Amino acid sequence: MAGDAAFGGEATDTREEIMHATYAALQKHGYAGISISRIAEEADLSKSSFYHHFDGKHDILLAFADYMLEDFERAMGIESTGDPVEDLYTFLNLILGVYPTERAAPDQVERLGAFLEVRCQAINDPEFRQKFTENPDRYVAHLTEIIEDGIEQGVFHDVDAERTATFLLTIVDGIIVEATTRTDDPREDLWESLSEYIEDNVVRRRTDTDIASWRQRPGRLTTGGTQNNADPRLTTGSPGDHPFFPSRPLKKDLRDPDDETEE
Amino acid sequence: MAGDAAFGGEATDTREEIMHATYAALQKHGYAGISISRIAEEADLSKSSFYHHFDGKHDILLAFADYMLEDFERAMGIESTGDPVEDLYTFLNLILGVYPTERAAPDQVERLGAFLEVRCQAINDPEFRQKFTENPDRYVAHLTEIIEDGIEQGVFHDVDAERTATFLLTIVDGIIVEATTRTDDPREDLWESLSEYIEDNVVRRRTDTDIASWRQRPGRLTTGGTQNNADPRLTTGSPGDHPFFPSRPLKKDLRDPDDETEE
Repeated sequence: MAGDAAFGGEATDTREEIMHATYAALQKHGYAGISISRIAEEADLSKSSFYHHFDGKHDILLAFADYMLEDFERAMGIESTGDPVEDLYTFLNLILGVYPTERAAPDQVERLGAFLEVRCQAINDPEFRQKFTENPDRYVAHLTEIIEDGIEQGVFHDVDAERTATFLLTIVDGIIVEATTRTDDPREDLWESLSEYIEDNVVRRRTDTDIASWRQRPGRLTTGGTQNNADPRLTTGSPGDHPFFPSRPLKKDLRDPDDETEE
Repeated sequence: MAGDAAFGGEATDTREEIMHATYAALQKHGYAGISISRIAEEADLSKSSFYHHFDGKHDILLAFADYMLEDFERAMGIESTGDPVEDLYTFLNLILGVYPTERAAPDQVERLGAFLEVRCQAINDPEFRQKFTENPDRYVAHLTEIIEDGIEQGVFHDVDAERTATFLLTIVDGIIVEATTRTDDPREDLWESLSEYIEDNVVRRRTDTDIASWRQRPGRLTTGGTQNNADPRLTTGSPGDHPFFPSRPLKKDLRDPDDETEE
């Protein structure tokens, strides 16, 4: 199961292997083109072994939603640094799944795309809708705590913490849509806009020295250049160890251009 | 074709009938469960008449993306009122597809859901990705003009117009995700947060009288209560005439709860 498994590494059991294979099949065929046969193909498992673990495609995809969402929960297990600004940025980085790699790492966008595709099932499926309400509610609650802490410390403006948390996560949703559905990659500009929003509306004005040091803070998005100031608590330093999903392709290369979704 | 057709009314030709049927099939089965047979069922047309107009399911769904996107283009055809604040809110209302109906009208969310489902195809499909880059770029360009106008008139702060437009539309994307994938309907709170963002970061502080009159402005979202201050230029006054899609179900009731997506 996700959450306790080694996300960055090899699958530790059949169930996790199926989750990894689902991710690979989703990348190749999209949600609309996914089938048990195609997932089985990625996992090198027989279809019958799938039915030993899951009731069918819908059941696998619900489990896959949990698998991704439970991983996000890790973002909430990170201990507070005591500095609400750092905690805020660390949390947003984790939710956006952008640490600790450089901009060039392609699988960040692929992971966000898989997440959005699964989330979109909530549009028509009440079971998915339940998940994609309860989990985000927990993120809002966690972010609300960080903001309340900032207000208490006098570091943040006296904003409505829950409302601000909800709005911030809505902006994050929008960034995920933009990052995954366009031909270009607007994340860097959008992250800059998000940071500007936070500086202008949430964080109290600091001295120039404070701002300079804060912009270099670990946990702040590091998409821009060659530097990598990712928080060492959050990474073993290699992009391949991103906890969301293994960056290694499974049996086949991801995004085979010759492989078309079924008509 | 969309754009020149009567969106709120009956389909005027077979091609448009197919678009309406695609919308109905999407509501019922979701993108993953859509098929030509299911679209044909909604339209009461034979499968062969589909192939007279389209090359297959992928072709229909690309045309459907155009059909929705062209409708958004109408938002850009609205003549300026000369007041950038009003123009800004009118545009955002149109993009969110929330005017002119009351909160209770269920098909607003359904329309946004269909839009998001189709947009999500851009995650894995380059042709969709092209569309969902070029069209949003035009919305950004249009919104940039409104903001530049506001800066020129001294009504808006001296913000980076294009960057602000991009950020506003990213927030709108996020609102669409939240509105369509949760069990509750957070649009009213999120619209309030978006308005607050605009008041605090874009529009220069006005007098109390200005703000009071501006909050009542036509074009501002009217989800909250019984009032309906929708801009009379934009509506004939009936929710059924919303230009995005006909609110009337087609052959069958939408969202038949007994109809499950194929496993």
